[in-house]
Amino acid sequence: MKKQLLTIAMAGLIGLSFNVTADETAFNTAEKAVEYRQKALSVMKENFAAMAGMVKGEVEYNADFFQRRANDFEKMSGIPWAGFAVEGAMPSDNSDALSEIWDNWEDFQQRANDLQEYAAKLAEVSQEGSLDAIKPVFMNTAETCKGCHDNYKD
Amino acid sequence: MKKQLLTIAMAGLIGLSFNVTADETAFNTAEKAVEYRQKALSVMKENFAAMAGMVKGEVEYNADFFQRRANDFEKMSGIPWAGFAVEGAMPSDNSDALSEIWDNWEDFQQRANDLQEYAAKLAEVSQEGSLDAIKPVFMNTAETCKGCHDNYKD
Repeated sequence: MKKQLLTIAMAGLIGLSFNVTADETAFNTAEKAVEYRQKALSVMKENFAAMAGMVKGEVEYNADFFQRRANDFEKMSGIPWAGFAVEGAMPSDNSDALSEIWDNWEDFQQRANDLQEYAAKLAEVSQEGSLDAIKPVFMNTAETCKGCHDNYKD
Repeated sequence: MKKQLLTIAMAGLIGLSFNVTADETAFNTAEKAVEYRQKALSVMKENFAAMAGMVKGEVEYNADFFQRRANDFEKMSGIPWAGFAVEGAMPSDNSDALSEIWDNWEDFQQRANDLQEYAAKLAEVSQEGSLDAIKPVFMNTAETCKGCHDNYKD
């Protein structure tokens, strides 16, 4: 009885609070999956761009700022890939993703895993507060991004 | 010399790989900050919606799926807030954020921190694989979302 009441209360709360349709989400609907991965990649890229400015010397290095961006980049590095795994979320007019992704799914997943590893290293090394220590790890990260874009992005 | 070459190589790599403008990012440009936080909140919400369907009993509970969504929800729970901290990224025609956010900045930050705590608890409890154990934590999380929306979202 208590459990049932809790479920009813929760359904009301969720219904009232959010415009949420559980039957169509980014994890079962191709169109939403494409939007989801694009938004996640965009958020990831903004963090990358903010760090790149400091690495390239265009913006003055700020260790605290860099650490926050590196931490958020690491968190984001695992997010987009679920949006590529949805049935039907293949290339379309609304996506730059090439069909080669799904023809080479294991390679694509390996590259996604590599990115997460480099992102974790980048977050770790950024704690030291040394741009010289950051640069080689940042370059590995950038190469990983580029490798995937070269192969799988229109 | 070696360091200099590395920096030049990296600048080329970053320039070639990404359409990246480091001088205007989500962390120093109001318009980009609004887009950034909206995208991050949208990605967070998709994970919430997918879990809500199972919590409400509309979609069959799948422990592995729920764990992945809870883990990604936890990662996302810290991301949007940087987009509210940019000078000038106040309410506008393109945003549902109310000016009360900046009038009550400490309260807003406290609510953001609360969300991150509940999201971490949700990710933790989801490892048990019990929907009954998940429900009360999910409800706390939903209430935290709702509290912030009620106060600070148009």
